[in-house]
Amino acid sequence: MLVALLPGDGIGPEVIEQTVRVLHAVCGDALTFEEAPVGGAAYKASGHPLPDATLDLAKRADAILFGAVGDPDCDALERRLRPEQAILGLRKELGLFANLRPAKLFAELADASALRPEVAAAIDMVIVRELNGDVYFGEKGMRTTPAGRRQGYDVMSYDEDEVARIARVGFETARARKGRLCSVDKANVLETSQLWRDVVIEISADYPDIALSHMYVDNCAMQLVRNPGQFDVIVTGNLFGDILSDQASMCAGSIGMLPSASLDSAGKGLYEPIHGSAPDIAGQGKANPLATILSAAMMLRYSLNRPADADRIEAAVAKALAGGARSPDLGGALTTAQMGEAVLAAL
Amino acid sequence: MLVALLPGDGIGPEVIEQTVRVLHAVCGDALTFEEAPVGGAAYKASGHPLPDATLDLAKRADAILFGAVGDPDCDALERRLRPEQAILGLRKELGLFANLRPAKLFAELADASALRPEVAAAIDMVIVRELNGDVYFGEKGMRTTPAGRRQGYDVMSYDEDEVARIARVGFETARARKGRLCSVDKANVLETSQLWRDVVIEISADYPDIALSHMYVDNCAMQLVRNPGQFDVIVTGNLFGDILSDQASMCAGSIGMLPSASLDSAGKGLYEPIHGSAPDIAGQGKANPLATILSAAMMLRYSLNRPADADRIEAAVAKALAGGARSPDLGGALTTAQMGEAVLAAL
Ligand SMILES: CC(C)[C@H](C(=O)O)[C@@H](O)C(=O)O
Ligand SMILES: CC(C)[C@H](C(=O)O)[C@@H](O)C(=O)O
Repeated sequence: MLVALLPGDGIGPEVIEQTVRVLHAVCGDALTFEEAPVGGAAYKASGHPLPDATLDLAKRADAILFGAVGDPDCDALERRLRPEQAILGLRKELGLFANLRPAKLFAELADASALRPEVAAAIDMVIVRELNGDVYFGEKGMRTTPAGRRQGYDVMSYDEDEVARIARVGFETARARKGRLCSVDKANVLETSQLWRDVVIEISADYPDIALSHMYVDNCAMQLVRNPGQFDVIVTGNLFGDILSDQASMCAGSIGMLPSASLDSAGKGLYEPIHGSAPDIAGQGKANPLATILSAAMMLRYSLNRPADADRIEAAVAKALAGGARSPDLGGALTTAQMGEAVLAAL
Repeated sequence: MLVALLPGDGIGPEVIEQTVRVLHAVCGDALTFEEAPVGGAAYKASGHPLPDATLDLAKRADAILFGAVGDPDCDALERRLRPEQAILGLRKELGLFANLRPAKLFAELADASALRPEVAAAIDMVIVRELNGDVYFGEKGMRTTPAGRRQGYDVMSYDEDEVARIARVGFETARARKGRLCSVDKANVLETSQLWRDVVIEISADYPDIALSHMYVDNCAMQLVRNPGQFDVIVTGNLFGDILSDQASMCAGSIGMLPSASLDSAGKGLYEPIHGSAPDIAGQGKANPLATILSAAMMLRYSLNRPADADRIEAAVAKALAGGARSPDLGGALTTAQMGEAVLAAL
């Protein structure tokens, strides 16, 4: 099976390197790897953040392992050339509409959360974020008002099919867990949210076994601090999901620990750590590769049908942590490579 | 001076009642009060959440003390008749564009935050939220796609004048505090945010003494958990401000403690607790009136030019807390009226 490696910018290459070592050790020759540039690195090499050859590889591959994109050198470029367009383009071109972000406190890292230990310990949720619609992909631009003033605008929207398919992912995810789904919107202000809520309720007729609730996004941002243990599965749109999933992962401790999967309707996926490119520590061996290693485990489980290998990797990560492996973000001093070696040793 | 009292729904009337007792005790005959219905209560009485007479009173008054709106009985009404439209209408009709939400941990309540005590203790910020624009007030509705599917849409936008005036409030607020302003946007995805960032940078030329930084909204949601003490003043748009200010207030402990001011360009304002109508505990004497009492203190300071009275009220609240006054949300058993009496006794 072919895995596309897209290391990208900043700490992306370092964390991907350690992850490939782990995948080699676990899967041997069952996986082949092909690498391509993406993001700021691709722009610098060839003038575009998502070159055709990279997109082709992503389409050909059975799964995509993605590092990170984002490069301050590119901040002044026009929008279509910025590194972020690469990940947005991949999500859209490949129809990766369902973003799964588990947030769970590793017992070994109870001290890493800013939340009280008893509050943090209860965190065990999955955020299901829609990735192909919302204000991310609507019409947008700069225009001039009748009064001659500059105005920026972005159209937020969802149609019923877009909501229905992500709602189903939410319900299915809840069914495989504790059976509770919380749909997050801002239906008291937004028509997009009203349609969202209406459709989620319609789809719920097919899932009588799931306890569905609705919450406004502002309240959810509070509840994720006050009592994050109340959530099992959250389903929400692209923009709210961006904010809430990052918040939830920080509640669960280091952002250096949390993986994500972005899936299409056939189960093909792109897997990436939720931390970004962290340009400030790039190339210094300070990055924590565990979020990427755990993303690879999700890849084995969801796209490559190797659940036993996924279990092995997750167990090795837990064992490495239990054995005291700590990168700087976890309060330790191990380098990126040493963290990778700790996982290899634990396998 | 005339204060418009708009108690509204749920726990609104209870918390306003205690606040008026405190204002009587502190200001004597200097203030006169006139009350009008708003929100679901107004809809039930007269068919509209913001009756003309209520809007007139709000316009005539020197300041507005607002309880809360929101009533589950009204969830199925068409949007223009829902309780929330009353507060949105007041903000818009009165040009209340600048929402100031201080978030600070009361030392006496260090135990109330879900954050570790040392993380929570460092919280002392003001969130400046724009209230008259963004996706809240753009064109919105339901339409049918070319494929015949229902679609909800809402247009997000800001023009340069709208950004400039709230940016100035942000810079001025920072100048009166520690001189640090963090502007929060999503400029890597949204054109509205790009214009926001461009204009904030332009305005910063007038404030060379203020340290300006920029942060993406998803990162800010993380930083508010990880290290909320890093923020002095945050300035952001209506939607991001809705989410982040509720999150920040929960980081600071009980949402029952936090006041807010919504100001027009002349300093006239509407003052409201940031908690909502809490229909589940309405009428039971369980509501904490301190957020409303502290909102009244902001009113005396910002709109009624009675800073000494504001100081007296704030000192009395701190003293009541130090003396052990605790409503259920703070882990105690005092009723709404007993909390009001504790403040009166401390005056
Ligand atoms: C890089 C950025 C465009 C992206 C997003 O907003 O979706 C990132 O924040 C994420 O969550 O994957
Ligand atoms: C009630 C609702 C419309 C309102 C808002 O979203 O602005 C509330 O959440 C607030 O923050 O004051």
